[in-house]
Amino acid sequence: MTRITKLLSIDIPIIQAGMIWCSPWQLALAVSSRGGLGVIGAGSMYPEVLREHIVKLKAHTQRTFAVNLPLLYPDIESHINTIIKYKVPVVITSAGSPKKFTAVFKEKGIKVIHVVSSTKFAIKSQEAGVDAVVAEGFEAGGHNGREETTTMVLIPSVSRSVDIPVIAAGGIGCGRSMAAAMALGADGVQIGSRFVLAKESSAHDRFKEVVSSASEGDTRLTLKELTPVRLIKNEFYSSIQEAYKRNADISELRQLLGRGRAKKGMFEGDVDEGELEIGQVSANFTSVLSASDIIDEIISEYNRTIAALDKVNVD
Amino acid sequence: MTRITKLLSIDIPIIQAGMIWCSPWQLALAVSSRGGLGVIGAGSMYPEVLREHIVKLKAHTQRTFAVNLPLLYPDIESHINTIIKYKVPVVITSAGSPKKFTAVFKEKGIKVIHVVSSTKFAIKSQEAGVDAVVAEGFEAGGHNGREETTTMVLIPSVSRSVDIPVIAAGGIGCGRSMAAAMALGADGVQIGSRFVLAKESSAHDRFKEVVSSASEGDTRLTLKELTPVRLIKNEFYSSIQEAYKRNADISELRQLLGRGRAKKGMFEGDVDEGELEIGQVSANFTSVLSASDIIDEIISEYNRTIAALDKVNVD
Repeated sequence: MTRITKLLSIDIPIIQAGMIWCSPWQLALAVSSRGGLGVIGAGSMYPEVLREHIVKLKAHTQRTFAVNLPLLYPDIESHINTIIKYKVPVVITSAGSPKKFTAVFKEKGIKVIHVVSSTKFAIKSQEAGVDAVVAEGFEAGGHNGREETTTMVLIPSVSRSVDIPVIAAGGIGCGRSMAAAMALGADGVQIGSRFVLAKESSAHDRFKEVVSSASEGDTRLTLKELTPVRLIKNEFYSSIQEAYKRNADISELRQLLGRGRAKKGMFEGDVDEGELEIGQVSANFTSVLSASDIIDEIISEYNRTIAALDKVNVD
Repeated sequence: MTRITKLLSIDIPIIQAGMIWCSPWQLALAVSSRGGLGVIGAGSMYPEVLREHIVKLKAHTQRTFAVNLPLLYPDIESHINTIIKYKVPVVITSAGSPKKFTAVFKEKGIKVIHVVSSTKFAIKSQEAGVDAVVAEGFEAGGHNGREETTTMVLIPSVSRSVDIPVIAAGGIGCGRSMAAAMALGADGVQIGSRFVLAKESSAHDRFKEVVSSASEGDTRLTLKELTPVRLIKNEFYSSIQEAYKRNADISELRQLLGRGRAKKGMFEGDVDEGELEIGQVSANFTSVLSASDIIDEIISEYNRTIAALDKVNVD
């Protein structure tokens, strides 16, 4: 029992990251059913698609779940209305300021968790009235901060600087890294990459293949001039590097990225030309399992790990 | 008692990093006296200076200590002869292949630890016969790997891939991060930045001031075309950024770096124009303490941290 399981009325302090193109209601259902917090990733959904996913998830479970809402989503009002209308219990907001919408959700009894990549924004999020923060390190997949602070450095600082619960993210996907995150001062963990490889994730099979065979050094944080994003190095990544070499400006980079790259790669399976967002920790996994088996594996390793930690004696 | 304390005959699994310009015999003495592994940083010492530091350290303690030897040191043979002549118990080699000299040291009964930043090189180091590896993540100060793998991701992978003891480095400087590293699978930790702020370190007071007031995001890994190095962002760093903007080539970068930048900054205290090597974790410390107090603080927080980790119950 941690502050985060209490806050969210869940059994296990594991939050599934709401990843675009990979986090449908089926994945959220599997995670929530096993006692964690399942999350629908709204960032890649049209308003009517989000509605459908929420309705189906609610039809299958009474348990707590969340919607991840990137605040730069173009038709944000529509998503917000859907979330309120269908009484989604928890919203995880990211990629924007928590000042604007936190009160809107909280008035309706919806819990708000905001994703940050620095201590400064963790403090600002607390001031904005959020219930908890996800503090995400440099090693995390997808969109990321500019300061490059890693989970190891970020979590002790954030957890010493705010009073609200802290969920660690970035580099976590096994029981050892979960134990590490809790030792650093987190109240729970958010896991993304490992759940991309869940049977219930909507990642294309070819994307899952690339993720499960990824090695150390295969991802890179790039496009820092737009929004920094951690990607698998593929042909699309090489074309970004080419653009950098010829000193491309922001508008050229934006044009190169274009529209629909992420969908193309992660959902449609064009693993060469698509944008493949994934964390460094993908190097450490090779198997596709059900979300429930992933959670069981993590928790059992977590319990073994903390039981094996020995006190250091000094005189 | 861990495999690393056993291997090195030390009491506490804390290895002080052998940092150039900051790791004189006085710091090594203080750390070894408190039960950790004190390390003289030979990379910034002329052969006769290294000899003097070893002689003085040996005159003051019977405990295990080490010399850190960057294998790209120009007059390496001379350092090696000194290390052998004065029966230094442990050598920590870095920045080069462990193949060439490991056998030379081991024949003389000297234990060899090699610093790596990837699982691949951890395995190669084991094959080369080293006694242990330091696995150092992206967040570490000073010279670093090209793959940018963070401690959180690197340590579980390295410790699952080799049989020899693993010392985690990068982002570690308090009891929480030490506990995190041990949870990730490390047998001990190497701590650098925190010991730059030790009273016994030879870092210039102005450098200590900059380190103790550093904030999140104040360091950056740069000069990746030469040897990647993590620095504090100061005027020298800005001039590197300017050079990148005008698409400077490697030789121009090398010229800009020049000779003696690190000494100028860290030892002579020119904190504007010098090269200030330090880890991300410097953001998390503000006080200058004796090495012994630093160790006591870390161990006491470590013990509190692991005692507070709760088992997660699942049905």
